[in-house]
Amino acid sequence: MRFSLHIIVENKSSFQIESSFQIDKWFLSNCSSLTWINMSVSKKLAQKEVISLLSNFTPCDVSDSLNKHGIADGGFIPNLVNRSPLVGDKSSAVGKAFTVLYAPKSDPRPAIKGSYIDIVPPGSIVVLGLPLEAQLINAPYVKVNNALYGGLMSTRAKYLGANGSVILGRIRDLDEHNDLEYPVWSYGVGTSAPGPLVKVVGIDVPLQVKVPTLEESKPEQVLTINPGDYIIADKNGVVRLPDDDKLESVLDYIPKRVDADTKVAADIKSGKPAKESQDLWRSKI
Amino acid sequence: MRFSLHIIVENKSSFQIESSFQIDKWFLSNCSSLTWINMSVSKKLAQKEVISLLSNFTPCDVSDSLNKHGIADGGFIPNLVNRSPLVGDKSSAVGKAFTVLYAPKSDPRPAIKGSYIDIVPPGSIVVLGLPLEAQLINAPYVKVNNALYGGLMSTRAKYLGANGSVILGRIRDLDEHNDLEYPVWSYGVGTSAPGPLVKVVGIDVPLQVKVPTLEESKPEQVLTINPGDYIIADKNGVVRLPDDDKLESVLDYIPKRVDADTKVAADIKSGKPAKESQDLWRSKI
Amino acid sequence: MRFSLHIIVENKSSFQIESSFQIDKWFLSNCSSLTWINMSVSKKLAQKEVISLLSNFTPCDVSDSLNKHGIADGGFIPNLVNRSPLVGDKSSAVGKAFTVLYAPKSDPRPAIKGSYIDIVPPGSIVVLGLPLEAQLINAPYVKVNNALYGGLMSTRAKYLGANGSVILGRIRDLDEHNDLEYPVWSYGVGTSAPGPLVKVVGIDVPLQVKVPTLEESKPEQVLTINPGDYIIADKNGVVRLPDDDKLESVLDYIPKRVDADTKVAADIKSGKPAKESQDLWRSKI
Repeated sequence: MRFSLHIIVENKSSFQIESSFQIDKWFLSNCSSLTWINMSVSKKLAQKEVISLLSNFTPCDVSDSLNKHGIADGGFIPNLVNRSPLVGDKSSAVGKAFTVLYAPKSDPRPAIKGSYIDIVPPGSIVVLGLPLEAQLINAPYVKVNNALYGGLMSTRAKYLGANGSVILGRIRDLDEHNDLEYPVWSYGVGTSAPGPLVKVVGIDVPLQVKVPTLEESKPEQVLTINPGDYIIADKNGVVRLPDDDKLESVLDYIPKRVDADTKVAADIKSGKPAKESQDLWRSKI
Repeated sequence: MRFSLHIIVENKSSFQIESSFQIDKWFLSNCSSLTWINMSVSKKLAQKEVISLLSNFTPCDVSDSLNKHGIADGGFIPNLVNRSPLVGDKSSAVGKAFTVLYAPKSDPRPAIKGSYIDIVPPGSIVVLGLPLEAQLINAPYVKVNNALYGGLMSTRAKYLGANGSVILGRIRDLDEHNDLEYPVWSYGVGTSAPGPLVKVVGIDVPLQVKVPTLEESKPEQVLTINPGDYIIADKNGVVRLPDDDKLESVLDYIPKRVDADTKVAADIKSGKPAKESQDLWRSKI
Repeated sequence: MRFSLHIIVENKSSFQIESSFQIDKWFLSNCSSLTWINMSVSKKLAQKEVISLLSNFTPCDVSDSLNKHGIADGGFIPNLVNRSPLVGDKSSAVGKAFTVLYAPKSDPRPAIKGSYIDIVPPGSIVVLGLPLEAQLINAPYVKVNNALYGGLMSTRAKYLGANGSVILGRIRDLDEHNDLEYPVWSYGVGTSAPGPLVKVVGIDVPLQVKVPTLEESKPEQVLTINPGDYIIADKNGVVRLPDDDKLESVLDYIPKRVDADTKVAADIKSGKPAKESQDLWRSKI
């Protein structure tokens, strides 16, 4: 029982969840990994710093660094459209992935009791997904025509301190997300609530995403968004950056590359060939 | 001959069609159901009231009520994008579906003579579709790369008092619909007129729409838009609401649910958990 | 060797390429048709006039004329979205196609040395494509999730006098194209550079584009964009107009048809039926 007690304390002190909030034991047993329980104070500070640093850069900048670190796709999760823009002076919405898995009502897994939206950690990006069998590699990218997410969810997520939501499906209530000045990304839009078709079957679980691939032998590849991955998003799309031992090196490269490319842009505007300038400045990083 | 005479009188009195307008008998025999002929004066008033009422709400509000009435998809017709926004103080474009079926020129059905756009009834939403075999469940959703609809059609539809157009295909002349302040939805855009590829084969006929489904045994499901269905559309998409014996109950629920969800939003902004507040206020409807 | 010498002179005099720019012989042997080498001074003037004329019209206007000249699809290249709008008083972005073919790194063809972006001719539209096997007829339309094109490329293309870029794939750096006021079209957006996945294997080569078709016997058709085709693009999409012996007649029809349709729009606004007015004014062209 120490386990469940620990969570309640964590909620009360750090996450400002109302005292009326009741955590259901059954709910807990269905959360495969409550990553935020394990955060130490020092790691939380680091997390804040990482989010603050990344907010000055774009997902394109992060992809450039991931390319340099051997990630060919630059961490890009394709086909997500920005539906309510980032307002203010940040270059991107950044946070730790708080993941939620929806599944068709016919799925053998039981629906999780309680509502995921009431336990969104501050500094997170809420990421909602569907199982592979409910996904399509072509638009509309999902077989669920109902929206997975709407205005009330953004209202609560913003109140709890989330930095944005990324919905691997449809959303609704476009005006509300915009009025809240809370940034949301999705594959598509819709008008109907999720309830009649799908249920939440996992929180803080890895989300799999089916996308096209150039590999001839297979029609698709599967990307994974893990809970706790950094998510960086702007109008160009959404990038995931694992919080692993490469993180420091990835972060270190980003401003150097941005600085080099700023010099390339200046060179080009003064008439220098692009390739020559790129070769020069990027070699100095 | 009373039949055709009746229509001409109807046109002259209610629909302000020019006296020079000639209705072709062959054209009439190809219209499977001219629903507007059957409208009584009393039903017309009711229709005006329904349109006026629904214009205060969004398609999302209508979907919530349809969910409550057992319609799992909330009446949503997926993948239609708003290309020229609603201007003014209405929350959505609302009207009765005036349907037009285009088909490839190779289709055995003869082309309907006369132009559908000159007999658009006031208070309608013009809905253009294609047969199932010309549709795709993935974007671009149709096999016809030419636009089905353009600026001159919106000019005429607006003149005749239509409230919007929903094109299950491509449209062109984006600036013109916007300059007219006439709202249009479509799957995609294009530059070429429909003439070289397709012809009109039905007016006031049911339109079938192929969309993805979660059901494992089949790759797609077929929705139907019937002539005379209420169409409600905004930037979130397009909803159809049948004009049947459930209508009054569906309309009755809408403002109650909107009121409840307004209270939920206020609760959330003052820090209450979303689920608790949703359960409270929605139970009182 | 006269061949390569000729190009270098051409570059120096007309295209303002830096003297430090080195043309690789191997690169040259891989360019199947350097169409711009063959331009005579008189043809260049004609080209300027054609671009200037077409800039007053929209791709829809051009498609109308191509329809009239027997081209059923009106020259439309489907599914390209305008990502940075045309600024100023032109109705469309117009230029001669300067084509670039990317291919997966596994493609047997060697990568072309040097950078295509440094030899963009003035007055061109840069068109980037992929081989048929890397294309999809449904969105996202390509199997390459990385962007093919970004902000530095637009910076250089604009400096060299190009009039826009059409990317049959993803682009990134949306803000940069917009800040440059340089118009770009693409299928989609992304965050990662092309380098890790694809290489340039052809410059000034025909580009094939796989799109849906209504023909029952086949699921797709292939369009071709040839180097030197006129490209006309606006928010409705992208049209190609071959620079062949029909060009003069196609150009001649455009303003006449626009004039007729302006009269039709005026007629409709004064209450005339659309069909009657279209028949009247278009018969006078």
